[in-house]
Amino acid sequence: MSTTTLSNRQYILKSRPEGLPDRSHFELREAPVREPGDGDVLVRTRYLSVDPTNRVWMSDMKQYMPPVFPGEVMRALGVGVVERSLHPDYRAGDLVSGLLGWQDYSVARPGDIALAPLPRLDAPLSAFLCPLHVSGGITAYVGLFDIAQPRAGETMVVSAAAGSVGSLAGQMGKIAGCRVVGIAGSDAGCRYVTEELGFDACINYRTEDVAEALGRACPDGIDIDFENVGGDILDTVLDKMNLNGRVTLCGLISTYNDKQPRPGPTRFPLILMQRLRVQGFVVLDHHARFAEAVEKIHGWMKAGKITWREHVVEGLENAPDALPMLFKPNKLGKLLVKVSE
Amino acid sequence: MSTTTLSNRQYILKSRPEGLPDRSHFELREAPVREPGDGDVLVRTRYLSVDPTNRVWMSDMKQYMPPVFPGEVMRALGVGVVERSLHPDYRAGDLVSGLLGWQDYSVARPGDIALAPLPRLDAPLSAFLCPLHVSGGITAYVGLFDIAQPRAGETMVVSAAAGSVGSLAGQMGKIAGCRVVGIAGSDAGCRYVTEELGFDACINYRTEDVAEALGRACPDGIDIDFENVGGDILDTVLDKMNLNGRVTLCGLISTYNDKQPRPGPTRFPLILMQRLRVQGFVVLDHHARFAEAVEKIHGWMKAGKITWREHVVEGLENAPDALPMLFKPNKLGKLLVKVSE
Repeated sequence: MSTTTLSNRQYILKSRPEGLPDRSHFELREAPVREPGDGDVLVRTRYLSVDPTNRVWMSDMKQYMPPVFPGEVMRALGVGVVERSLHPDYRAGDLVSGLLGWQDYSVARPGDIALAPLPRLDAPLSAFLCPLHVSGGITAYVGLFDIAQPRAGETMVVSAAAGSVGSLAGQMGKIAGCRVVGIAGSDAGCRYVTEELGFDACINYRTEDVAEALGRACPDGIDIDFENVGGDILDTVLDKMNLNGRVTLCGLISTYNDKQPRPGPTRFPLILMQRLRVQGFVVLDHHARFAEAVEKIHGWMKAGKITWREHVVEGLENAPDALPMLFKPNKLGKLLVKVSE
Repeated sequence: MSTTTLSNRQYILKSRPEGLPDRSHFELREAPVREPGDGDVLVRTRYLSVDPTNRVWMSDMKQYMPPVFPGEVMRALGVGVVERSLHPDYRAGDLVSGLLGWQDYSVARPGDIALAPLPRLDAPLSAFLCPLHVSGGITAYVGLFDIAQPRAGETMVVSAAAGSVGSLAGQMGKIAGCRVVGIAGSDAGCRYVTEELGFDACINYRTEDVAEALGRACPDGIDIDFENVGGDILDTVLDKMNLNGRVTLCGLISTYNDKQPRPGPTRFPLILMQRLRVQGFVVLDHHARFAEAVEKIHGWMKAGKITWREHVVEGLENAPDALPMLFKPNKLGKLLVKVSE
């Protein structure tokens, strides 16, 4: 197969958004796929993972890796299939995950796009994008067990509870023996996490008084906050943290569209008074833990203790419309763009 | 000796201050010392420790132990001498530390005022109030070695650097092999910590642009922030924290006189992006570490690696005027009230 016969659609970041991103910030280009050189692999994208961190990469805020610069292909994690390999560790047909970007095909050295073979486990492909993926279960696993370090009987609050990471972190909290209280943005989300995922309670922050509802749902206070949202919700949660509580700072989605930096939590002094540990983490730092996480999560899937949902947007062409969906409570579980079969 | 012949001056908290505390918030009472009962000790106060946390105890903010209530003797740590003991573990003449309060004499069960004998070490009495005291060196030791966990070659910033805890934390940072940069409120304070204590640099936040000065003093960024102040200075320091940096939240003195809760740091999202660990601690939780801390600090004192200064206010009657001095840059080192010889 000559790759020059393949055409590649690519979404290029055109400008940095102020506020919510939309289609106007991207430009669709079409170009022939370049011929792989020695050490390259050619990967066909199957699914793209749509994550809050994509919005961070579009901005020039201080962040944990270089942002995407205007003119570059929009960065995104995804899974795909190797179509051609000039690298000794990969063969045509291999299923892989990596920073495939918003495009039909990637041609790159594996290390440059964080390529890794999918684990050889008995699981559907979509599981490798959610419970078994860095943007889902692996983040939940590291953030909960390594960063928050739960003890049985503790109370754990999870924000963005119906989302990809939150839904899995909460289920793992139940496995760890915690009382788990979710915070979500819709009644459907609350029903999902309590009825399907086994959370003990869930608060709809759009319709309920969060402080009052947290008081009811957490009669013994809060020991762990698995924080995906930030802003006012975090502030309210801080107010109820117990002595020696831990805040795993996994995401701050409520702030990513801010045009101006906003003030931090008013309850910041409680970090001192309640001897809290507030720890930011980025899962990519914890590569050494991925194998254990995948093994454990896969075991829990088999045992029926971990379940998940996907919300699939069909077609690469719709990726720019998928991204803003993250910031609205109109989907449950993992948001994906299906690029090819 | 009958204790009924002893008269006890006591400062009673009259009202909770809004803003800076002053004499109007206290009432001086004089009453005979009550007769010790079985299990009690009678302690004569020699020195009182004047600490930022005293201001916290005067307020009804959420805090790490119950506040002082109006009508109660003002709480304070101090050292004294046992005048009479009806407790098997104490004898007249013993030197002790504990929550002696703003009064000439305490009559209490040892456990009720956290009484402990002074370590039997070759050191002047004042050392037991500063480098060897929970309000000084022991806090610095636990906050640095247990909470921040320094590595040689790292850069450490210490706010309130000329104060009791800051001056000792910075010297311990040097012992740990760190580059140590202080932040203080006067040129005299800056000279003290660089010339006498061996800090590598010090910034006068009242006369310098802190962001710019930090950039110059910390060319490799900041790995550890030993935070005693909070507010804008903390926000500025956060902006320069390196990946995996640690913020030891030891005090937030800039906020203790706030009439309204103020917003937290604008750079709060950097805790996530830079994977910081922000940890509040209160030294009283770490009792099991005190013996090691005292032994190590005493060794460093003997080796000339730890030095300190005291600022002594004479007379219990002047305690209400001593307290607000904490919030002004007009003293170096540990602030004490001398109550008796």
